[in-house]
Amino acid sequence: MSKVFVNIGLSLDGYMAPEGMTLEHWTAPEYKNWGAKWGSLMGWVLKQQYFRTNLKFGPGGETGPENDMLRKTMERSGASIMGKRMFEQGEASWPEEAPFHTPVYVLTHKKREPWVRPGGTTFYFVTDGPESALEQARESAGGRDIRISGGANVIQQYLNLGVIEELEIALAPVMFGEGRRLFENLCDPVPRFRVDKVHEGATVTHLRYVRE
Amino acid sequence: MSKVFVNIGLSLDGYMAPEGMTLEHWTAPEYKNWGAKWGSLMGWVLKQQYFRTNLKFGPGGETGPENDMLRKTMERSGASIMGKRMFEQGEASWPEEAPFHTPVYVLTHKKREPWVRPGGTTFYFVTDGPESALEQARESAGGRDIRISGGANVIQQYLNLGVIEELEIALAPVMFGEGRRLFENLCDPVPRFRVDKVHEGATVTHLRYVRE
Repeated sequence: MSKVFVNIGLSLDGYMAPEGMTLEHWTAPEYKNWGAKWGSLMGWVLKQQYFRTNLKFGPGGETGPENDMLRKTMERSGASIMGKRMFEQGEASWPEEAPFHTPVYVLTHKKREPWVRPGGTTFYFVTDGPESALEQARESAGGRDIRISGGANVIQQYLNLGVIEELEIALAPVMFGEGRRLFENLCDPVPRFRVDKVHEGATVTHLRYVRE
Repeated sequence: MSKVFVNIGLSLDGYMAPEGMTLEHWTAPEYKNWGAKWGSLMGWVLKQQYFRTNLKFGPGGETGPENDMLRKTMERSGASIMGKRMFEQGEASWPEEAPFHTPVYVLTHKKREPWVRPGGTTFYFVTDGPESALEQARESAGGRDIRISGGANVIQQYLNLGVIEELEIALAPVMFGEGRRLFENLCDPVPRFRVDKVHEGATVTHLRYVRE
């Protein structure tokens, strides 16, 4: 059966995204220095061959264990779920061949027809809540796993539903000071995890937690 | 020259202490379940021989690498700095022979004569701010290192002063949901660290960062 997992980058002070990284300032990465901050969080990803190929960044890139981790994350994913804000930022950034190659369920309040992209990604717009999105993702994942992609608010909703079984965090040694926190708005009883695996990357620490 | 360092336990969601863990509820650990939450954060420490001996908990305890880490942290410390709330909680908890065996500088607004404990710990009450406390700690540390013990607010003050050179975090796979966050109230430019060392403990992940 499909597992439900999260795989994200996190700043040491607990942010998924720096202050100022919004669609409004998407083409102004110097605004509140969000571009540099985001780069310090995700720099390790941008260097990996698998990511570069998938995002059409061109040839080259690292091919070590962190590259393998990215590939495995992609290969295990049979469907993704994301919030509207993350989708809109991606819509402004992804290549025409969006980098998922599976169904992607977008939590939103606005109805919209499915958006089919070349390369196997179709975005479905779900207006009846996170449980419905998860159910649809399960049906379409073909036994592969379901990635809760983000943003923070969406991950919080699924943590509070108690359905997240694996939490994979690439913890970067950077502090944003402000931005969108991953861990807030959690309700009692908070989910319980144990450390499953730790991998020391070149610049970030890969922490893998599984639900107890 | 003395290094200034932090060595703390942190919940996965970024808290140093759970909601409800205040002097007012010190003898009621069931209040908001703070006792169990604190235990899940610090349980690994309570099991170590070095800690048990130092806190007069009695004989026995683990003697592996995590025990060595506790011993090294204590041995490197020539002075500590803490906030008034942490001091007051300790005052209500420590054995007569307080577990520092060095000068301890307590940041407070209330003047008080130094409090000499058996075993080498003397508490000095500093009313003229964190920089003065650090200066006094440097003078008394005899070349050994200076530990910023906590709580969260005191560590934030020293992070914002830019003086913390090493940040050692025992990251526990527990979520508190609410409590006292370590990383907030940070001012730009936020301090810059790099990962120095990662050690996988039995239940927590020991992350060591050094200032860039």
